Amino acid sequence: MKKKIVVIGGSFGGLTAALEVKRLAGDSVEVTLLSADRDFVFLPSLPWVIMGSRRPADITLGVAGILRPRGISFVHESVTEVLPGELKVRTAAGEYPYDYLVIATGPHLACDEIPGLGPKKGFTHCTFTMEYAIKSREAWLRLLEEPGPVVIGSTQLASCFGPYYELAFEMDWELRKRRMRHKVPITYLTSEPYLGHMGIGGLGKSRRFLEDEFAELDIKVAANQAIEEITPGEIRLAGGGLPFKLAMLAPPFKGVRGVAGLGNPRGFIPADQHFRHPEHANIYTVGVAMALAPLEPTPVPTGVPKTGFMTVRMAKAAAANIAADLRNLPPSATRELSVTCMMDMGRTAALMVANPLLPPRQKSYVKKALWAKWAKIQFETYFLWKMRHGYSRLP
Amino acid sequence: MKKKIVVIGGSFGGLTAALEVKRLAGDSVEVTLLSADRDFVFLPSLPWVIMGSRRPADITLGVAGILRPRGISFVHESVTEVLPGELKVRTAAGEYPYDYLVIATGPHLACDEIPGLGPKKGFTHCTFTMEYAIKSREAWLRLLEEPGPVVIGSTQLASCFGPYYELAFEMDWELRKRRMRHKVPITYLTSEPYLGHMGIGGLGKSRRFLEDEFAELDIKVAANQAIEEITPGEIRLAGGGLPFKLAMLAPPFKGVRGVAGLGNPRGFIPADQHFRHPEHANIYTVGVAMALAPLEPTPVPTGVPKTGFMTVRMAKAAAANIAADLRNLPPSATRELSVTCMMDMGRTAALMVANPLLPPRQKSYVKKALWAKWAKIQFETYFLWKMRHGYSRLP
Amino acid sequence: MKKKIVVIGGSFGGLTAALEVKRLAGDSVEVTLLSADRDFVFLPSLPWVIMGSRRPADITLGVAGILRPRGISFVHESVTEVLPGELKVRTAAGEYPYDYLVIATGPHLACDEIPGLGPKKGFTHCTFTMEYAIKSREAWLRLLEEPGPVVIGSTQLASCFGPYYELAFEMDWELRKRRMRHKVPITYLTSEPYLGHMGIGGLGKSRRFLEDEFAELDIKVAANQAIEEITPGEIRLAGGGLPFKLAMLAPPFKGVRGVAGLGNPRGFIPADQHFRHPEHANIYTVGVAMALAPLEPTPVPTGVPKTGFMTVRMAKAAAANIAADLRNLPPSATRELSVTCMMDMGRTAALMVANPLLPPRQKSYVKKALWAKWAKIQFETYFLWKMRHGYSRLP
Repeated sequence: MKKKIVVIGGSFGGLTAALEVKRLAGDSVEVTLLSADRDFVFLPSLPWVIMGSRRPADITLGVAGILRPRGISFVHESVTEVLPGELKVRTAAGEYPYDYLVIATGPHLACDEIPGLGPKKGFTHCTFTMEYAIKSREAWLRLLEEPGPVVIGSTQLASCFGPYYELAFEMDWELRKRRMRHKVPITYLTSEPYLGHMGIGGLGKSRRFLEDEFAELDIKVAANQAIEEITPGEIRLAGGGLPFKLAMLAPPFKGVRGVAGLGNPRGFIPADQHFRHPEHANIYTVGVAMALAPLEPTPVPTGVPKTGFMTVRMAKAAAANIAADLRNLPPSATRELSVTCMMDMGRTAALMVANPLLPPRQKSYVKKALWAKWAKIQFETYFLWKMRHGYSRLP
Repeated sequence: MKKKIVVIGGSFGGLTAALEVKRLAGDSVEVTLLSADRDFVFLPSLPWVIMGSRRPADITLGVAGILRPRGISFVHESVTEVLPGELKVRTAAGEYPYDYLVIATGPHLACDEIPGLGPKKGFTHCTFTMEYAIKSREAWLRLLEEPGPVVIGSTQLASCFGPYYELAFEMDWELRKRRMRHKVPITYLTSEPYLGHMGIGGLGKSRRFLEDEFAELDIKVAANQAIEEITPGEIRLAGGGLPFKLAMLAPPFKGVRGVAGLGNPRGFIPADQHFRHPEHANIYTVGVAMALAPLEPTPVPTGVPKTGFMTVRMAKAAAANIAADLRNLPPSATRELSVTCMMDMGRTAALMVANPLLPPRQKSYVKKALWAKWAKIQFETYFLWKMRHGYSRLP
Repeated sequence: MKKKIVVIGGSFGGLTAALEVKRLAGDSVEVTLLSADRDFVFLPSLPWVIMGSRRPADITLGVAGILRPRGISFVHESVTEVLPGELKVRTAAGEYPYDYLVIATGPHLACDEIPGLGPKKGFTHCTFTMEYAIKSREAWLRLLEEPGPVVIGSTQLASCFGPYYELAFEMDWELRKRRMRHKVPITYLTSEPYLGHMGIGGLGKSRRFLEDEFAELDIKVAANQAIEEITPGEIRLAGGGLPFKLAMLAPPFKGVRGVAGLGNPRGFIPADQHFRHPEHANIYTVGVAMALAPLEPTPVPTGVPKTGFMTVRMAKAAAANIAADLRNLPPSATRELSVTCMMDMGRTAALMVANPLLPPRQKSYVKKALWAKWAKIQFETYFLWKMRHGYSRLP
C-alpha cells in the first residue's frame, strides 16, 4: 500500500517538499498538498509590486497547475487541526490521514497583538501577502499625491526585516526620481536593537553599512523600539509619538493556528536537525513555521528570519529524510542554515552573506553591488520557471 | 514721483538687493544704501586672511565705488531705528524716508552674553569681520612662536559653523607643514549636538565624515557644550575647564540693534516666503538678519546658518518682489533655501550640498574633493569681479 | 683604569646598549651584561610561534655568542638587588661593581594580581616568553581538536596590546582557512577604554578601523573591562562571566623585582629625557623597565606600550650619553619617542605610525597594506642578522 504524505502549505517550503518527496519516492507514495491559498506568490518580489515594477500576475502561479502534472493532489483548504495521535489532518472539508506530515505553513501575521496594527483592522500596511501588497500599492500612490511622513520597519516579535529595508531604499529612490523626497520624511522604525541586526546579530559590518547609507539618504532611524499602539496618523512608542501618512510595518509573527497545537507558546513548531518533530518522528517542519531560537535575546523581542531560499533547502532536506525513512534508512539530510540575500536598494543593491545563519560564522559580509540587483531579478525568473515546471531537483 | 528704496547693510545681501532692484526698476526708483561699513569684505575668505594666504586688500572693495556707477546713493551711517509707521529709517546723521525697505544687516556678535568672550573685552578671537580676522592673524603668529593648546569652534546660539571647521583643518595642516603639530593640541569645541550637525541636522554623512577626519588628524572633539565663562587661558564648561593658548570661537548671534525692534526676542526679523515682514509688507529681510527656525531644538541652542551665496539669492528674490510690487504685480519670487558649500580642509577640501537646507531633503551629501578648493578660489575671484562691476544679474 | 659598565637584561634594550657602548667607548670600558635568560628571543614573532609559522629555533640566538666576539662579558644570572650607594649589582652568584649601570629588564608579568591568571598557576595563556608561547601553541592545537570559545586581549595594567590584536586576526584567519571559524566564537577582551586605544589614546582612526575589521570578522569586543577572577573556563567581569576554551591574555605589567627598589610603586624606573635616573645620574633605564606616564588615566588602568624598536632607539641614546659622559661631555642624545608598527592581520596586515608616541602628534595613521606583512618579515630577518653579528650601529 502506498504511503500517504500530507504537506501543509503551498509556498516555497510546501511546494518544494511535495515535489521533492514525489520525485524521490515516486509511485511508492501518494502526496497531497493542502493550502489555504490557491496561488503561489513569489513573496520576495512583493516590494516591487508595491513600487509598481511588477504586476501581481508576473509573480503568481496556480498551485494546482504546478502539482497535477507531477501526480500530486492539491486540496484548497485550510487545516484546522493536526491529530498526531490519529495520524490525521483535519480541514473544514474533511480529514486527511497521513503516514508522513510536512508542515510548511509560514507565519500567522499577529496584527491583533498591537492595537491599530495591520491593513485589516488597523492603519498600517505590510508586504507579506499579495492582497496586502496591493493595498500597500494603493496607499503608496495616495502618498505620492499627498506627500507626508513615511514610517517603515518592524514591530516587536517580527522576524522578517529584509523587505522593509528594501522598501525604505526603494521609496527613497522613487521619491528622489520624482523630485519630491524633501516632502516625505522617512523613518525606519524597528524592534532590532540596532540598524542592520536583522534578527541574526548583524552580519559583517551590516550595522555601519546601513547607518552610513541611511545617514547619506536622510532616512531617520528609531531602533530598539516596541510599539504600544497605533492611531490614525501616529505610532505610539514609549518615548513619544511618531507621525505618519504611510506606515509599512512587519507585524509580530506567530505560528499558523491549525498547526499551533504542535508548537511552542507562540505556535512555532520545534524540530531536530533533520527537521523532525521531537515527539512525532513522522512530522517534519520547514520554513517560518519551524521554531528557531535567536542567538541571544534582544531588548525588544525579535525573531530569526528565514528566507524563501533557506526554506527551499530545508524542504529538500525534509523530503530526503522522508525518502530515506521509507527505505528504512536513518535520516541523513541536515542543513547548516545559512543565508545569501540580495537586498534591493533602489538605485543599487547589496549582497549579504551569513554562513552559518547565526554567529560565530565561517563567512559573513555585506557588499554594495549593482549586479546583486540583476542577480535578484535573475533568481526571480529562474525560480518561477523552476516552479512552473515542477523541477524540485534543481537548486 | 520716484519710489524710494532704502537698503540697510553693505554686504552680500544689501549690495545685491540694491543693485538688483535698481537694475529691475531703473529710473522709477531712487535707491539708497545705508551701511556702517565703508567696505565690502568677502567674508568667506577671512580664514585665509588669518592663515596668511590673503591680504586684507585682496578681498576688500569700497561700497561707494560699487554703487555710484549704478546710480545708487551710499550713506556711511549706522541705522539707529526703523520707524515703520512713519516709513522712515533713522541714523545719527538724519532720517531717510522709504517706500520699500530692505534689511540686510547680518548678525550682531553678542560677545557680551558669555563672560570673557570675544576679541574686544575678552580672551577669544573670531573670524566675522576684517578687524577681528587681523587680530586673529596676530594671535596665530604669536601661537606659532609660542605653541600651546588651540580651541576652535562655536558657542551656544552661534549660527555659523563652516569657517570654524575650516580653521581647524587649516591650522592643523599649517602646523604639520611647519613640523610642530605635536606641540599644539587642537580641540574642536561646539554647541552642535554632534560633529557635522552644522545647525542643519547634518547633511548626508557629515557626522561620520568629520568624526573620521578629526580622528585621523588628532583633533579632539567636545560637542554639545555650552560655555559658562572664559578666563585667560581657560574655557569653563559644565564638565570642567579646557585650557587654551589660542581660542577661535563663533560668538552667539543676535539681530543688529537698529532693526531689532522689528524682530523676535533675539532681534531676528520674521519674513514670509517672499521675504516680506508679516506686519509691514513693504519691509523685506534677507540673509542672517532674517529669522529662520531650526528644524528641531538642539540640547545646547544653535542657529541655522546662512551662507553668503544663500543671502545673495534671497536678496535677488526680495528685489524681484519689490519690482513686481512697483508694477502692481503679486510677489512671485521665492526661494526654497538650499546650500552648496565648499569647505577648505587645508590639504584638501570638501563639497557639501543640502537641498533644501533642512531635512528631509531631495539631495544632500558631503564629498572630499581637492577640486572643491579650486572651486572655492574661483568663486571668490568671480564674486569680487562681479561686485566690482556691479553685475547683480549674474548668478 | 677601565670604567665598568654593567647592563641588566639580554633582550632588545640590553643587547643594544651593551654592544653600542662598547662600540663607542672601545677599550676604555669593560662591559658586562647580566641576564636571567641565556637566549635572545625575537619577541615580536612569538605570535607566529603560537600559530606554527615559526619554530622556536628560528627566532632564538644565544646571548653569549652575540657578545663574546665583541669583547663583552655575559653573566647568566638574575639580579637580586641594585645598591646604588655602593655602585654594585647583586646576584645570587656574587656582586658586580659598576661605574655606569643600564637597566633593560623589561616587564615582570604580574599574573598573581588576578586570581586564575597566567600559564603557570592559572588557566590563561600569553605570548611574552618563548616558554609561554610554546604552551600557547599546545593549547591552540588542542583547541583545533576540540573547538570552543576563544578570548584574546589584555588585563588591567597590561601595557602591550599589539600582539593580542595580531593573535585575534591570525586565529580568525587560521580558523577560516580550516573552515571551522563558526565553531569558535572569538571575543577581544581588553582594559583599553575602546578598541584601538592601544594604551596611547589611539592613533589616527585606529578605533574605527579596528571596529570595522572586527565587525567584518565577527570578532566580539568587550572593551573597558577589568577582570575580577578567572576560573577554569570562565573569565569573571563586573558585568558577568565570559566563557572560554582558550584564553590568551596579556597580564598586568610590573617592574622586575631585582631593580624595583629604584622605581615607582609598580617597580617602573623613572628617567629623564636622557634616560638617566633622576637621583642616580649614572643609572640609565631603557625599554619597558622605564616609567612612562600615560597621556591621561583610562577608566580601567592601562600602560603605555614600548615596542622592541623603540627600546633599541632608547638603548642607543643611553649608550651615546654614557660615551659622552666618559669624555666629560654633557648628555645630548635624547629621543622623542615614536612608534612604527607593522601589525599582522592574518590575511593582510596594517601599518601603524604614531610620531610622537602620545598625542597631539605631528603624524599618525593606520593603513591596511599587505606589504606591511612582508616588511614585518623583512624586519625580523634583518634584526636577527644584525644581532647575530653584533652590529649595533645599524638602525
